[in-house]
Amino acid sequence: MGIVLNGGTIVTAADIYQADVRIDGERIVAIGHDIKQPGDQVIDVDGCFLFPGGIDPHTHFDLPMGDFSTSDDFSSGSKAAILGGTTTILDYATQFKGETLKQGLINWQAKAGGKCYVDYGFHMAITDWKDSIAREMIDLISQEGISSFKLYMAYKNTLQVDDQALLQALRQAGEYGALICVHCENGDVVDDLVHGYLKKGKTSPAYHPLSRPPEVEAEATFRVITLAQMAGAPLYIVHLSNSGALKAVVEGKLKGLEIYAETCPQYLLLDDSYYNCEGFEGAKYVISPPLRPVQNQDVLWSGLTSGILDVVATDHCAFNYKGQKDKGLNDFSKIPNGAAGVETRMGLLYTYGVLTGKLSLNDFVALTSTNAAKLFGLFPRKGTIAPGSDADLVIWDPRISSVLRAETLHQQVDYTPYEGFKQSGQAIHVFLRGKQIVENGKLKVDKPTGMYLSRKPFLKRKVG
Amino acid sequence: MGIVLNGGTIVTAADIYQADVRIDGERIVAIGHDIKQPGDQVIDVDGCFLFPGGIDPHTHFDLPMGDFSTSDDFSSGSKAAILGGTTTILDYATQFKGETLKQGLINWQAKAGGKCYVDYGFHMAITDWKDSIAREMIDLISQEGISSFKLYMAYKNTLQVDDQALLQALRQAGEYGALICVHCENGDVVDDLVHGYLKKGKTSPAYHPLSRPPEVEAEATFRVITLAQMAGAPLYIVHLSNSGALKAVVEGKLKGLEIYAETCPQYLLLDDSYYNCEGFEGAKYVISPPLRPVQNQDVLWSGLTSGILDVVATDHCAFNYKGQKDKGLNDFSKIPNGAAGVETRMGLLYTYGVLTGKLSLNDFVALTSTNAAKLFGLFPRKGTIAPGSDADLVIWDPRISSVLRAETLHQQVDYTPYEGFKQSGQAIHVFLRGKQIVENGKLKVDKPTGMYLSRKPFLKRKVG
Amino acid sequence: MGIVLNGGTIVTAADIYQADVRIDGERIVAIGHDIKQPGDQVIDVDGCFLFPGGIDPHTHFDLPMGDFSTSDDFSSGSKAAILGGTTTILDYATQFKGETLKQGLINWQAKAGGKCYVDYGFHMAITDWKDSIAREMIDLISQEGISSFKLYMAYKNTLQVDDQALLQALRQAGEYGALICVHCENGDVVDDLVHGYLKKGKTSPAYHPLSRPPEVEAEATFRVITLAQMAGAPLYIVHLSNSGALKAVVEGKLKGLEIYAETCPQYLLLDDSYYNCEGFEGAKYVISPPLRPVQNQDVLWSGLTSGILDVVATDHCAFNYKGQKDKGLNDFSKIPNGAAGVETRMGLLYTYGVLTGKLSLNDFVALTSTNAAKLFGLFPRKGTIAPGSDADLVIWDPRISSVLRAETLHQQVDYTPYEGFKQSGQAIHVFLRGKQIVENGKLKVDKPTGMYLSRKPFLKRKVG
Amino acid sequence: MGIVLNGGTIVTAADIYQADVRIDGERIVAIGHDIKQPGDQVIDVDGCFLFPGGIDPHTHFDLPMGDFSTSDDFSSGSKAAILGGTTTILDYATQFKGETLKQGLINWQAKAGGKCYVDYGFHMAITDWKDSIAREMIDLISQEGISSFKLYMAYKNTLQVDDQALLQALRQAGEYGALICVHCENGDVVDDLVHGYLKKGKTSPAYHPLSRPPEVEAEATFRVITLAQMAGAPLYIVHLSNSGALKAVVEGKLKGLEIYAETCPQYLLLDDSYYNCEGFEGAKYVISPPLRPVQNQDVLWSGLTSGILDVVATDHCAFNYKGQKDKGLNDFSKIPNGAAGVETRMGLLYTYGVLTGKLSLNDFVALTSTNAAKLFGLFPRKGTIAPGSDADLVIWDPRISSVLRAETLHQQVDYTPYEGFKQSGQAIHVFLRGKQIVENGKLKVDKPTGMYLSRKPFLKRKVG
Repeated sequence: MGIVLNGGTIVTAADIYQADVRIDGERIVAIGHDIKQPGDQVIDVDGCFLFPGGIDPHTHFDLPMGDFSTSDDFSSGSKAAILGGTTTILDYATQFKGETLKQGLINWQAKAGGKCYVDYGFHMAITDWKDSIAREMIDLISQEGISSFKLYMAYKNTLQVDDQALLQALRQAGEYGALICVHCENGDVVDDLVHGYLKKGKTSPAYHPLSRPPEVEAEATFRVITLAQMAGAPLYIVHLSNSGALKAVVEGKLKGLEIYAETCPQYLLLDDSYYNCEGFEGAKYVISPPLRPVQNQDVLWSGLTSGILDVVATDHCAFNYKGQKDKGLNDFSKIPNGAAGVETRMGLLYTYGVLTGKLSLNDFVALTSTNAAKLFGLFPRKGTIAPGSDADLVIWDPRISSVLRAETLHQQVDYTPYEGFKQSGQAIHVFLRGKQIVENGKLKVDKPTGMYLSRKPFLKRKVG
Repeated sequence: MGIVLNGGTIVTAADIYQADVRIDGERIVAIGHDIKQPGDQVIDVDGCFLFPGGIDPHTHFDLPMGDFSTSDDFSSGSKAAILGGTTTILDYATQFKGETLKQGLINWQAKAGGKCYVDYGFHMAITDWKDSIAREMIDLISQEGISSFKLYMAYKNTLQVDDQALLQALRQAGEYGALICVHCENGDVVDDLVHGYLKKGKTSPAYHPLSRPPEVEAEATFRVITLAQMAGAPLYIVHLSNSGALKAVVEGKLKGLEIYAETCPQYLLLDDSYYNCEGFEGAKYVISPPLRPVQNQDVLWSGLTSGILDVVATDHCAFNYKGQKDKGLNDFSKIPNGAAGVETRMGLLYTYGVLTGKLSLNDFVALTSTNAAKLFGLFPRKGTIAPGSDADLVIWDPRISSVLRAETLHQQVDYTPYEGFKQSGQAIHVFLRGKQIVENGKLKVDKPTGMYLSRKPFLKRKVG
Repeated sequence: MGIVLNGGTIVTAADIYQADVRIDGERIVAIGHDIKQPGDQVIDVDGCFLFPGGIDPHTHFDLPMGDFSTSDDFSSGSKAAILGGTTTILDYATQFKGETLKQGLINWQAKAGGKCYVDYGFHMAITDWKDSIAREMIDLISQEGISSFKLYMAYKNTLQVDDQALLQALRQAGEYGALICVHCENGDVVDDLVHGYLKKGKTSPAYHPLSRPPEVEAEATFRVITLAQMAGAPLYIVHLSNSGALKAVVEGKLKGLEIYAETCPQYLLLDDSYYNCEGFEGAKYVISPPLRPVQNQDVLWSGLTSGILDVVATDHCAFNYKGQKDKGLNDFSKIPNGAAGVETRMGLLYTYGVLTGKLSLNDFVALTSTNAAKLFGLFPRKGTIAPGSDADLVIWDPRISSVLRAETLHQQVDYTPYEGFKQSGQAIHVFLRGKQIVENGKLKVDKPTGMYLSRKPFLKRKVG
Repeated sequence: MGIVLNGGTIVTAADIYQADVRIDGERIVAIGHDIKQPGDQVIDVDGCFLFPGGIDPHTHFDLPMGDFSTSDDFSSGSKAAILGGTTTILDYATQFKGETLKQGLINWQAKAGGKCYVDYGFHMAITDWKDSIAREMIDLISQEGISSFKLYMAYKNTLQVDDQALLQALRQAGEYGALICVHCENGDVVDDLVHGYLKKGKTSPAYHPLSRPPEVEAEATFRVITLAQMAGAPLYIVHLSNSGALKAVVEGKLKGLEIYAETCPQYLLLDDSYYNCEGFEGAKYVISPPLRPVQNQDVLWSGLTSGILDVVATDHCAFNYKGQKDKGLNDFSKIPNGAAGVETRMGLLYTYGVLTGKLSLNDFVALTSTNAAKLFGLFPRKGTIAPGSDADLVIWDPRISSVLRAETLHQQVDYTPYEGFKQSGQAIHVFLRGKQIVENGKLKVDKPTGMYLSRKPFLKRKVG
């Protein structure tokens, strides 16, 4: 007894066609016409698109930040995710100074275990590089299904690593089948500018973007691409936000380097004028990298259209305006960096990307699901609609439209950066491994059923 | 009663998975497991890849060239095509000076009608631009299924048009749903250089590349991209051969322009040292643009890998070395320009692209089939393996390998530029609209069954 | 009996130092301390800069434009020039269709002869290219002292030449010692856009810049640089106005090509917002290339500072607003293209370049005098302050400031594009070949004494 | 009683003309014709060029390197310099870890004092950055005439500073009138590559260039330009060696940044094939940055021709092949880095730059003298031939030619990288502050008369 989704238009990263989809258990087993078997349940999805479940490879759920944590934990965050059409998230587990990677991983396994409404995996962020960590990487890849690691070029004295650590991590990853993800901002410069502003009594949120100008991201991006070239390793740039950084990526790709890059809806749709909001409102947009001058948006969209940018993730890192963001009322450097986005990603990209003609529907699926699945060792189990793949399916009704409001969203945070933005289309039904989790736009299940995803090693392009 | 292809690995531009394919009549009707219906014939394709039939959007079959024609007509050329795994070709029908487009089209319909072993369509090359031709374009798009047109920036006094014609044709195409294909070389410069060399008694094939240096292609490419920008129209660059031209394409794409570009195996695998062959042998490689210095190859491969280049076509334009190429024995400008490639494209790209790790299997399918189908109004009928699509299928056996030899190829021409190149894999079975044309690497049918493809208008990215 | 200028600060393209200058007859004979000879007249220039007389290598005096001519002829234009600190002009003599070059030259000799208050030479603009003209170039270079020629890529059907003419002219010039100057805009596109706007009833001056967008200049610049490369010849780009064109020049120079480029004060100081003036006022700024979006200004200044741009000329081409510009009241394409600038060039560049710190005083001299002298065969006779050079000297008093007003300028035209601009400094005394023409800011002579300059062939960098 | 140099051709960065030069005491007092005063000595320099004395702003005389020092001290090095036509050198005094700047300066003053045959100044290299050093910079600028400082991005754990130090030093320099000079190579990467090769037993000189690839210089150059932009400060790149680094400089200049760059003859004339010499011979070319692939040479020459590169210095840092270079016989990382060049710079640039047509004579003077004088606070006292300037004069006889041989050069080192190179022209007479030091190519004095040059603060372009 399976389920047949009847009459929808299937969209993958390459295809768009009308056909039925038959699910048996957790998997898709057939696609076509005349595939119903006796006893199958039939669900009519006429007029809807069927997208592969969204994959958001950049979240920070339950992330400790001094004496509090991000407002969304794995429960609330994953609920928001699946209601927005995302069925898999990859969160950044973090090794703090002095810890082994395994300890960091165990901490994050504890945070997520049994609470997640979507399937989940972890990248492991490394903040304390040494030879023993290099060796431990191999274990995580082969035994724990962790095939991506992150290093930070920013956050001096806490997360930041030096160029030699980056080079060695890249080389190790390249050799043992992992992908290094890098936060590209020159932390030395940022640190210096921040303290310079504070020393002059410049404490408002407006000084956040001034202390992290686009040039320091472009510089770090250019630098880490050079390091990847020296290491002969693939590289994934997270949350790329401006044209200078994109230029570095383009030049790297055209040298034949295996460079991948992700951007986020906030950089495509918001700009640095938001920091001029009255009072402390600008704090809502204190994220890193910061929002950029508006002319960067067109360039980023072109990056998506031309295939230079590979993924649209969220960097979901939610903090309440009251009680969290306001820790920095008198010092912008104390505003916790981050904002929510996991629930709104698919709708925003569909509305402002597909419906404006900037992206094809295939591009949309590639950017929200398929490419991330391929890069992070989940494909073809995740990231597509094909026989044999997990039945992670989003039934998207393009006829519904809405307006985004913090109060009606399910993210556990008291504001959204997209307040008042329109959304066309909605994820009315969502399936996770064959089980319907969202029905008519509402959560249908009582208990989370998301499972941990042990991921395959990163596969360099070379095959055969 | 259908056919079920059992046990192969299906590859599309996005996916790769193991499943059965069921064909009913001319179409694919289902893909998956357990889809066989009573009475179906089952063909075992275990261990093989199933690719969408190749689409070669750049052929010149039966092209008149002075007092003779290309050595391959639609019969021999299409036989070679399908034996190499290509099931659709788009040939360049040409309006010569004084003709209407319709007259040109009728001429080419006559050449191809009833002779073609693959499905075929035509681009219409315009050499005599005027207002009446602009109006006629609309008819061809809406009534004849011709949704792409070609103009030449080279071949002064014969095919070359001026910038105003290009601009107007681009604008007209943009408005009425067609894509303009352009041969980018500055014909004024070429003409001048050619005559300069001849005047100095420089008549050997070695002067062919010197009279068409990479810069004149880069210049023309940059120029026509500017024209497309001015026209607000999409553009397709044919046979891009060098890094300077690629740079122009990259810059155009990053400005958000809708620019597409094709390269060919000859530019990826051969280089200008071939013109230094002994005696008149260099004439075999007299093509336009000419083969380039070898460092361009890496750049072109990076263009494919990074998605900047969209299509690998052949510019198949075969001339016999004896009796045709030798017309230019004493004057390189009289050597007919062109070489054969339609039969070897898929194998070369698989061998030197996929197996070297430069391209994924998905890239391979995108570049040899899917992207061309999308750009030229054939998708999703052609260009993919999905329910509802034509059952144009290549069963590719990766275990077979061979060495390319003119004498064993089926192209009707007395040499191949790839003599002695290795090929891994082979199209052992090929289906065209559900009918098996090639079986175990041999033509299975007596009569051609290829049909004319009336193509859909070009769809700009904008939807909804 | 000579003249000693006593106590000034001498500025050349390289030097700045305090010393006396001794003039004997038409030449500078000594510079230093203690150089006065018995009987010398001493003029105290304490507190002033001594600049080499300005050279404006781009004027159009007495240029026929349909049924009238530019409002400044050689008499009024040259008076304005010398009062502004310019002692040499190079005007564009023009060969019209059907004429020989010699005929064109004779026409211009007649316009200028006996009327010019500054020394003058001619570039010869070629509009009708053929073999006989190529041969005639050699005569002009060797016999008439004409070592620069101009071709137009714009003005279809009147001045525009095709790429083959450009290539051949470049090659001829390169071989026989001349420099080709090119107006870079794609005339095919401009012509098409102009007619497109007019057809839609878009007739106001605001459509002038829209019909000649920056991209068509960048394209033509890139193209002609390619042609110069093919010809192995040096090239001089006139009135470069935007960042895209500058990019082409930079890339050309970094390929080792001998490319030179000129910009003008109007592109450094004015922008395309002027076309939005009320009523018909925008017509005052109808020049070609048109004024550009304001962000181009910074790029052009950087081009000057970095030495990528070589010359600041004026393209002085004055038309009265009343009676001339208003010919295009109902059709922007009928507005005569051009504006005045010969009188204001030095003051504007000093005020907005030197005093803002964008240019050093040495840069100022290089850009307004020395570089043009070198490129156009006048150096070291003109373009510097050195023993043996013509005593063309500008005594610049930096303590004087003024505001530019059409009514107080000496140009014979009823408006200035710089109305209300401040000017710091003034050419209080000006010497031409040892004779003081301007004294205390006023013309001191009754009759013009400017002479025709027979120029030396262009010297490629190669020496020895 | 003065000296009159009679009949030579004076060349400055802008001018070239025939005139006499009159020297009185240490200074030039007049230039021109008929300037001889009673009692003057007349020296005939007919047929010769008069160049301003060369300025080499990058030497390392008497530099300690572990248990020995460079083979040239201030005596031998400065003798070689003046015999080669260089009359001023700027040496890199170094603050070692734990020292104050003043201590470093005193050390270098002691090395040079009383030993120098040319005038000399010091840049101060900072290797131990902290707040007290920042404050001390101000004293050195205002009291010691040190207006340039150097920091290293390479040499991890010894000379290398981090980005925050660079940023702060740039800012301090920008504020107080100094120019920061930077050695651009990513020391983290170099260190890692070096140890990687050694660990694998790769110990020969051929691994020197492999451990410092062009990309790590390009990266560091791009990075420090970003830092200069952030600091709002000018920047001087030392010994730029490859096209990637040049690209960074071009882009910086075109953003309007005040970036200057120096290259050296070794990068213009030698290439990395020298590392493939037999045996240990490659050690002679172990310099940092290393020699590069040959295609970089053309790009660097274009950088000079186009004015993008500002200075040709030597990085003279001589080590004997026997007894010094051979310390690294079994470990390339122990080969002392550096080679000699101070004696051959002028002759090589004249021969391979001017006489090949790549540089004009004016370019030659600008690159070997004037630009360095301007950038390093010595102009117009040094760097030109003008009344009031020091009479540092090189009488260059273009009729003499020679072949470079270590045994006939005066540098105190047992080899020259240019062994066998031809030199056209020679500095037959050299004057330092009015005193003739070299006569007919031979040292004429017994005792050194070079003096310490207290330099003026760096003047940003902004004046008035």
